[in-house]
Amino acid sequence: MSAPRTLLGFPDWEPAALLDLVDLARDLKGGLARGHLGGRVVVLYFANPSLRTRASVEAACARLGATAVVLDAGAGGVWGLEHRDGVVMDGTAAEHVKEAARVLSRYGDAIGVRAFAGLKDWGEDRTEPLLSAFARHATVPVFSLEGSARHPLQGLADAQTILERLPDPRGQRLVLTWAPHFKPLPMAVPNSVVEAGALLGMNVVVARPDAMALDPEVLAAADALARARGGSVRETSDRQAALEGARVVYAKSWGALRHYGDWEAEKPLRAQENPRWVVRAADLERGDDPFFMHCLPVRRNLKVEDAVLDGPRSAVIQQAENRLWTAQAVLLRLLDGGVSRQGREPEGTLIA
Amino acid sequence: MSAPRTLLGFPDWEPAALLDLVDLARDLKGGLARGHLGGRVVVLYFANPSLRTRASVEAACARLGATAVVLDAGAGGVWGLEHRDGVVMDGTAAEHVKEAARVLSRYGDAIGVRAFAGLKDWGEDRTEPLLSAFARHATVPVFSLEGSARHPLQGLADAQTILERLPDPRGQRLVLTWAPHFKPLPMAVPNSVVEAGALLGMNVVVARPDAMALDPEVLAAADALARARGGSVRETSDRQAALEGARVVYAKSWGALRHYGDWEAEKPLRAQENPRWVVRAADLERGDDPFFMHCLPVRRNLKVEDAVLDGPRSAVIQQAENRLWTAQAVLLRLLDGGVSRQGREPEGTLIA
Amino acid sequence: MSAPRTLLGFPDWEPAALLDLVDLARDLKGGLARGHLGGRVVVLYFANPSLRTRASVEAACARLGATAVVLDAGAGGVWGLEHRDGVVMDGTAAEHVKEAARVLSRYGDAIGVRAFAGLKDWGEDRTEPLLSAFARHATVPVFSLEGSARHPLQGLADAQTILERLPDPRGQRLVLTWAPHFKPLPMAVPNSVVEAGALLGMNVVVARPDAMALDPEVLAAADALARARGGSVRETSDRQAALEGARVVYAKSWGALRHYGDWEAEKPLRAQENPRWVVRAADLERGDDPFFMHCLPVRRNLKVEDAVLDGPRSAVIQQAENRLWTAQAVLLRLLDGGVSRQGREPEGTLIA
Repeated sequence: MSAPRTLLGFPDWEPAALLDLVDLARDLKGGLARGHLGGRVVVLYFANPSLRTRASVEAACARLGATAVVLDAGAGGVWGLEHRDGVVMDGTAAEHVKEAARVLSRYGDAIGVRAFAGLKDWGEDRTEPLLSAFARHATVPVFSLEGSARHPLQGLADAQTILERLPDPRGQRLVLTWAPHFKPLPMAVPNSVVEAGALLGMNVVVARPDAMALDPEVLAAADALARARGGSVRETSDRQAALEGARVVYAKSWGALRHYGDWEAEKPLRAQENPRWVVRAADLERGDDPFFMHCLPVRRNLKVEDAVLDGPRSAVIQQAENRLWTAQAVLLRLLDGGVSRQGREPEGTLIA
Repeated sequence: MSAPRTLLGFPDWEPAALLDLVDLARDLKGGLARGHLGGRVVVLYFANPSLRTRASVEAACARLGATAVVLDAGAGGVWGLEHRDGVVMDGTAAEHVKEAARVLSRYGDAIGVRAFAGLKDWGEDRTEPLLSAFARHATVPVFSLEGSARHPLQGLADAQTILERLPDPRGQRLVLTWAPHFKPLPMAVPNSVVEAGALLGMNVVVARPDAMALDPEVLAAADALARARGGSVRETSDRQAALEGARVVYAKSWGALRHYGDWEAEKPLRAQENPRWVVRAADLERGDDPFFMHCLPVRRNLKVEDAVLDGPRSAVIQQAENRLWTAQAVLLRLLDGGVSRQGREPEGTLIA
Repeated sequence: MSAPRTLLGFPDWEPAALLDLVDLARDLKGGLARGHLGGRVVVLYFANPSLRTRASVEAACARLGATAVVLDAGAGGVWGLEHRDGVVMDGTAAEHVKEAARVLSRYGDAIGVRAFAGLKDWGEDRTEPLLSAFARHATVPVFSLEGSARHPLQGLADAQTILERLPDPRGQRLVLTWAPHFKPLPMAVPNSVVEAGALLGMNVVVARPDAMALDPEVLAAADALARARGGSVRETSDRQAALEGARVVYAKSWGALRHYGDWEAEKPLRAQENPRWVVRAADLERGDDPFFMHCLPVRRNLKVEDAVLDGPRSAVIQQAENRLWTAQAVLLRLLDGGVSRQGREPEGTLIA
């Protein structure tokens, strides 16, 4: 048997392998025979609430004939977990990941983990502390159900959605626009959106207030990937200019890296920026017949106005549906229950 | 494929279709072959706690070969949902039903929703605000796991139980007696009990303190239905007279409509009425060899004394068991996986 | 069909039947065909958090083709249950076990219940109040997912682990050593460990501070069982002497019986004893090439130092894995879906 694999973020996999996942997802959505994981058990550990991720991965398991075992630590039904090595465990966590990951590896054929950012120390959050600890200690594949720095299942579904609507996205403009919120949100989704656009060779423009710049290392790596595939990644605070020529407008809120862990310092900034960054229908009209994306959940009229979400440009339900198909693709690839594709070069079928 | 159907309350369906559900439930209980929903996924969204409904619907799915995906919002593992249109979502609900219902429709073949009454505004609660919003936006069948005004799965199981014990219930007396509690409870179950009795053409008498009158519109509609089927619906505050000739005594507590949302105003009433309305074994002796029903959970000796629940007249476990069979019938009908019944006229087999 | 059976603790079953469970678990682990409970529904009621028990029993159900229905009362998604007879239910419990057990018996083919000790009255906790009430009222098999006085699924997995590492454990020394904690823990696991050692005919030595003596009745019964099988059970406060010649060292924390329900009285004791009883690698060197056991979760470096848990003597992951196999054995035996073993005398294959 091949070594266990992990999927904590796009950087873990080769671009061709990521595109193969999207291609497999599209085949599954198109009706490819299913039920290839009969008898398998997939353990899903949720340290945080979830609707789409939980429902889509459970439904994906059911469609493949596998059984999902859900451990809802966020709801209090399961112990909290310690991930730091060597500490005296006299706090709230009753169990260490060293045990949990190894034990759950004996019960399940793969382990999915949801662990949001702590939002105190980006230096720690960017390492995916809980997920990395699971990956280090588990003896079966570990995959992210949204981590502290990336949300690869979202990124894959976003890539699928873009390809469905824009068959050749290379060199096309994707604008990721910051959106208001009354509290700082993690950067897992924006990072994964940028990486998904880069994977597809798009020209990704992150439009945000200067204070909301994303991690420069994440952007530089994504830019290098994008350039190798015919695109680019850059940031700007001029949203109106960014929207010119946009084929995709993706809205998402996140917190200021420079005030990470210090919400009081960020509050005055928000009072100033929030009202200016609500996404409105008129914003989309500046683009080149763009479609609108958001990972959901979305706070209507706080971040994005109803007219955008309910209008004909919205792709948010399609995005969410694709979570079902990409989750199946990931499960099939991680569990080596891969579907025979008779000698096709997977990546070749996407972007020649 | 036929249009998605909903079951939020008995008024949504024709009487013949409701009786067909009960008939199918009885066939299933009698051993009719099962497993007709293999590979289907049923999403169950619980905004409130549940034991019977959750366990019976999950077991019903398993018996039919379907997989239940449970989202436990009440326990904190899933976002709360906004159902009002056009609001700025700056409160506790992180997601709108517009998104949730459409997204879950992509993952599941049907959606069950449990959403208790808010107990502040009956004008709103009587519209089933969350369930109606789900039904409006979902693209798959939506059914109630107990709403704010009705509990149709309970009503169906109650109808099945009555028919099992009283093969021709037309014109027989069903007394729904108000029972004490230390807080105001919703009216979903009493409304559904009245409607179930009306559906069976029974003479339904609601015995309650004057302050606990049920919604007159619900009663009037139920009375019209009952009259068309050989029965009637009326209210009284004279429990002793109501019990004369009763064939079924159904106990349930609910709050005062006139003080809806104002518990302080209701409290003095309760101090007066609670002690007089406990259901005791002697009360049953006034009936015509009646059997005793309650939807459960029941607070023993607060609402109903042990001697009733543990005595030979109690049908409460039979009622609860029938939740399993009626849930299967509802799932089969909603998912169009209907069981062929070879030309039988369903309603004809129940009440000629 | 035979009468429903229960498994609340080892004393409920004959030793030969317990050893048969372990033997069946070993066969299943060795690859014996599975899937014998297709279509069955197992209800799991959790009054308390769980990781291993929940995941292992759900995975066991999946491997046998059964469906687990999980009711997570600890997380707030299900009503709390009253188990006392005759009380007026005006407290927090909205439902009585009398109803819950009978109702769930209609939905499922077996009921597992997790109900930790109340830690107020050992006289009550030793009777397994909630589990006993379930067993009394259910009409299907009831089994413990950890009770207030015993944890038989743990005891079975421990017996399997010992037999895997020590094929003839009779007369060999198993040291159960008390370990520190910052609060009093229940005695379910230590009692079951002692009973597992006795079942295997081992010389069980419970090493603990004098104040932490276990229930003398439990020890006396275990000693009688052990003696009939070539072993013994005794207590001591001299851990160093106890460890001489140990083949198995099992660590676990529990509270002082003499201060049960009075943590303030126990605290000064803890300040004195905790530092002396941490399990360290050097402790294991006193034994006869022993292996180390713990039921998990374990608070690292508070109860047991990293070097023990991460060292070559640790059997804790093997123990946890065996929860999966013994759970399957219990489900098969309780549900009468037993696996044919062609005339072998089960107990004969373990300890002749």
